[in-house]
Amino acid sequence: MPGYHRPDAKKLQDLRDIANKLRILSIESTQSSNSGHPTTCCSIAEVMSVLFFKTMKYSVQEPRHPSSDRFVLSKGHAAPILYAAWALAGLFPEEELKNLRKIDSDLEGHPTPRLNFIDVATGSLGQGLSCAAGMAYTGKYFDRASYRVYCIMGDGESAEGSIWEAMSFASLYNLDNLVAIFDINRLGQSEATPLQHQMDIYRARCEAFGFNTIVVDGHDVEALCKVFDEAQHVKGKPTAVLLKTFKGKGLDGIEDAENWHGKPLGDKAPAALEALRAQISGSEITLKPEAPVFDAPEVDISDIKLSSPPSYQLGEKIATRLAYGTAIAKLGSSNDRVIALDGDTKNSTYSDKFKKAHPDRYVECFIAEQNLVGVAIGCGTRSRTVPFVSTFAAFFTRTFDQLRMGAISQANIKCAGSHAGISIGEDGPSQMALEDLAMFRSIPRALVLYPSDAVSTERACELAANYKGIVFIRTSRPATAVLYDASTQFAAGKAQVVLQSDSDKVLVIGAGVTLHEALAAARELQKKGTQIRVMDIFSVKPIDSQSILSNARQCGGKIIVVEDHYPEGGIGDAVASVVKNEDGIKVVAHLCVRDLPRSGPPSTLLDVFKISSSAIQEAVLAQA
Amino acid sequence: MPGYHRPDAKKLQDLRDIANKLRILSIESTQSSNSGHPTTCCSIAEVMSVLFFKTMKYSVQEPRHPSSDRFVLSKGHAAPILYAAWALAGLFPEEELKNLRKIDSDLEGHPTPRLNFIDVATGSLGQGLSCAAGMAYTGKYFDRASYRVYCIMGDGESAEGSIWEAMSFASLYNLDNLVAIFDINRLGQSEATPLQHQMDIYRARCEAFGFNTIVVDGHDVEALCKVFDEAQHVKGKPTAVLLKTFKGKGLDGIEDAENWHGKPLGDKAPAALEALRAQISGSEITLKPEAPVFDAPEVDISDIKLSSPPSYQLGEKIATRLAYGTAIAKLGSSNDRVIALDGDTKNSTYSDKFKKAHPDRYVECFIAEQNLVGVAIGCGTRSRTVPFVSTFAAFFTRTFDQLRMGAISQANIKCAGSHAGISIGEDGPSQMALEDLAMFRSIPRALVLYPSDAVSTERACELAANYKGIVFIRTSRPATAVLYDASTQFAAGKAQVVLQSDSDKVLVIGAGVTLHEALAAARELQKKGTQIRVMDIFSVKPIDSQSILSNARQCGGKIIVVEDHYPEGGIGDAVASVVKNEDGIKVVAHLCVRDLPRSGPPSTLLDVFKISSSAIQEAVLAQA
Repeated sequence: MPGYHRPDAKKLQDLRDIANKLRILSIESTQSSNSGHPTTCCSIAEVMSVLFFKTMKYSVQEPRHPSSDRFVLSKGHAAPILYAAWALAGLFPEEELKNLRKIDSDLEGHPTPRLNFIDVATGSLGQGLSCAAGMAYTGKYFDRASYRVYCIMGDGESAEGSIWEAMSFASLYNLDNLVAIFDINRLGQSEATPLQHQMDIYRARCEAFGFNTIVVDGHDVEALCKVFDEAQHVKGKPTAVLLKTFKGKGLDGIEDAENWHGKPLGDKAPAALEALRAQISGSEITLKPEAPVFDAPEVDISDIKLSSPPSYQLGEKIATRLAYGTAIAKLGSSNDRVIALDGDTKNSTYSDKFKKAHPDRYVECFIAEQNLVGVAIGCGTRSRTVPFVSTFAAFFTRTFDQLRMGAISQANIKCAGSHAGISIGEDGPSQMALEDLAMFRSIPRALVLYPSDAVSTERACELAANYKGIVFIRTSRPATAVLYDASTQFAAGKAQVVLQSDSDKVLVIGAGVTLHEALAAARELQKKGTQIRVMDIFSVKPIDSQSILSNARQCGGKIIVVEDHYPEGGIGDAVASVVKNEDGIKVVAHLCVRDLPRSGPPSTLLDVFKISSSAIQEAVLAQA
Repeated sequence: MPGYHRPDAKKLQDLRDIANKLRILSIESTQSSNSGHPTTCCSIAEVMSVLFFKTMKYSVQEPRHPSSDRFVLSKGHAAPILYAAWALAGLFPEEELKNLRKIDSDLEGHPTPRLNFIDVATGSLGQGLSCAAGMAYTGKYFDRASYRVYCIMGDGESAEGSIWEAMSFASLYNLDNLVAIFDINRLGQSEATPLQHQMDIYRARCEAFGFNTIVVDGHDVEALCKVFDEAQHVKGKPTAVLLKTFKGKGLDGIEDAENWHGKPLGDKAPAALEALRAQISGSEITLKPEAPVFDAPEVDISDIKLSSPPSYQLGEKIATRLAYGTAIAKLGSSNDRVIALDGDTKNSTYSDKFKKAHPDRYVECFIAEQNLVGVAIGCGTRSRTVPFVSTFAAFFTRTFDQLRMGAISQANIKCAGSHAGISIGEDGPSQMALEDLAMFRSIPRALVLYPSDAVSTERACELAANYKGIVFIRTSRPATAVLYDASTQFAAGKAQVVLQSDSDKVLVIGAGVTLHEALAAARELQKKGTQIRVMDIFSVKPIDSQSILSNARQCGGKIIVVEDHYPEGGIGDAVASVVKNEDGIKVVAHLCVRDLPRSGPPSTLLDVFKISSSAIQEAVLAQA
């Protein structure tokens, strides 16, 4: 192997001593919290020692330094040993480890980015590798820097399909700066893993998914040093390191035994600690983490603007999904850190317009939505990029766990879901998003934007680019009329009144296709002498409570909500929540999709499921 | 190969003719609907012909016959050819195919069980194999019958991780009655697939995941006959058949060309149809589908009761998750078609109590939640079993797309999510379900039950067993007091008033831990002279509107909702929706988890996030 130098005996002893110190600290901290997973920590003690004190190049004082190697502990329940590694590296005093899982400590049960050395929260298994792959993709193709990315997964965890999505992705894009480490300690939570120590099967799977694959004794620090050095020199392929390990390694009577998952050692701790201390050489540890190669560029993702304002004629018919493509291409022209990702739907979501304009910043993730979102989260860490992620809105349901964890990760991603609701028509219910608003509304701190025309769609994308957090933009399939001129101001938490008079009987709130149905209804009702006020909600979360309430008061306190969504969790629930503690304001009707839909022409479906202009007219007239 | 007889020349010609007839019908129907995926159909014409007219044994007149072989079209966008196959088999007239995608036809854009020959809806890719594996598991282990299960997937689809979860599962359980067929036609929706025609890589992946794997020319009916016969004779392993095919096969200028995904042939149709007709021999097709081996047992899943009533002392402290384990074990004793599945959390969800009582009916699915739910859906098809599926409630978010499709599939599964909310404590936010009610409420026709003590948990499970559809049961980690005696009646859509007086100032609605906090608040408030009414919501969907409104009116029209959930989509939204059109009734406070939580002791977290007894007292006193 080119340039490999076997560490000298002192260094190897240091690494062994560090491994046992990490075990001791993991046991002590979980004793202190009286909960946690010390045996899960013990199986990775040697690999943590080697990674943090021999292999990785990073800044201890500035863990998120753009040039530092990245580390993702996908098996997040081993958090105590990760915290111990950073303490031993010198980031904070070892005594702080005793605060594990306490309410006033950021050393939580599973890692979160409240800690400055964590990029993504873990603890829902199988998600770390996608995020790591996003970081590696960013390092290789956007930053073009030499930092490397390491991700440790459990063997039980390897049953998660999202891992195999990430494996496909990493090999397809030749992420030779990524090392996927599997801690094969044989034992799951409630029983042994199906493959136990059949290392050859793991090897065959990783090789078949395109990885340079190495099986190694996970408790042999010398072998580990060599393996990671080898991985560094393999070009064009990511490396998988399969560690044969034992859960609870080094703990007498506990090592490789069942029924020790997620339990502190309790009264077995003193003897275990004593035995571990006896293993440590006693000579001073002189190994220090190596500094990074400082070659990642400075980037700026602040104040991103559309490169030109929206340019449409009022009344012109443009699908909001198409305006999305136009918008992100413009944002990409303004800032070279705007990127786009899609899951083989780019010719439907129109993210292909971004690809055409900025081919080097488009990432095709194929039909693997969990990995799509995970990669985007990874790309967005450390403010390296602003990822726009698109697929059919319905298929974001595949990624709810990634989004849930993304919120905990303080992820900065922009999700654009096209083909909302029954208005897609003939493709039928499997392709219709009717629960996406419920899902995205539930995500803490997320913005949920639902533009109704091309202008507001472009502005929604601009707002999204500048909001630090998760944003959902819901777009529609049918072409709809442009409603706003280019100078209209849009903001999160701000609705637009698109039609009003002094004698409005009802406030009708819609978005997307239903806003256009409401406007059509208003025209018909006016012929019959009935005026209604029509509001474009635009921002479903946060919702514009003030404008809803003041406009409702001007309309006799009556609100009708009409949405292309199931009854629960969407605009109807959001508006109900606004009026729930108000006097004299009522939601008199909530028009929405009240049962399983079916295939059919869009306009027929709007009628059949009673969210069309005629259904709105009927609901309004029922109030007269 | 034992017993394999090469079909004679006439039969082979019949199979080729049928394949081309299927192509013709697929083109004609998509011409008629002016939308759909004819090229996707054409790549599987030969395999459909061989499966439906040579390999599979099934009842044409009674497609869901318990002894019939099963077929799952995971690549659901090829629906037209599936419909054509059943028409040619004789289930309905060919002319009906012209009604494809029309509003009054059940021949929808993607298959749904509105059709009597569909077991599970498809169209969100990567889900069919899990369902097929559930059917095969049921056939092999519960029905012990000879029916076999065939599932066709696309190659683009094979990027979905859920497929690899299903592959692991199928090989682990030696499902030799399952055949996974990959249609490797090289082209995705928006570009070529990453692996194109690299059949060896597909083969390596399938072999590594434990399948007997055969690569075959997917357009060679003779080879296909042989392959499926071989698969039938392989014991102890499922078989993967990798079809090398061409998208749009047989269509001049379209075959193997890009930009033909999801488009009818338009003006190219007449020439294509003519060319296909010219391929057909013209001799009468005499092949008929073979009848099943009638060896599946009759089963009865009606009227399932707890084998003994709940047996607890009032005030005794029992976690609802523990009562769940007790309940399903009892239900399993009453009916031998009740089964339980879990994802390596059985010692936390207490489904291990079922495993202990009924080891042959417990299915360990390990850490692969999408497959867990997919297998359960498959097991529940054709009313063969009543599957209870458990994992942490948070991890059901991983399965939202499966649940969404499950609703369209009219699935009959019972999901029990444990470890709800911040009351789990130290493990931290990744393990806390705080959006699960939003998710399950959005699922059409689903029941959402949230029991607050051991008795109501047992009854919730009993209700779930007898409801045909998706049920969610939310259970909690902490031990809480038994509130009800065994004779209390529970029902979907029925709340319980657990504390009341003639002078209640506020109606406090809670569930799970927050109900117990509300009762504690009531005791404290009473000392200060303030009476409150306390309601156990029990059924979040459907919600007991009548009882909420009548009780609220008796409490001065004031409601306080307190829940261990994020603000959106949970009990608060549900109650807001109940009162949104009522005079004189308000939700004066909604106590819930208003920001990202963190690790800490449960009782401290309840205080910090203001859903504890003291927060409730404060909210009540603010109304005084």
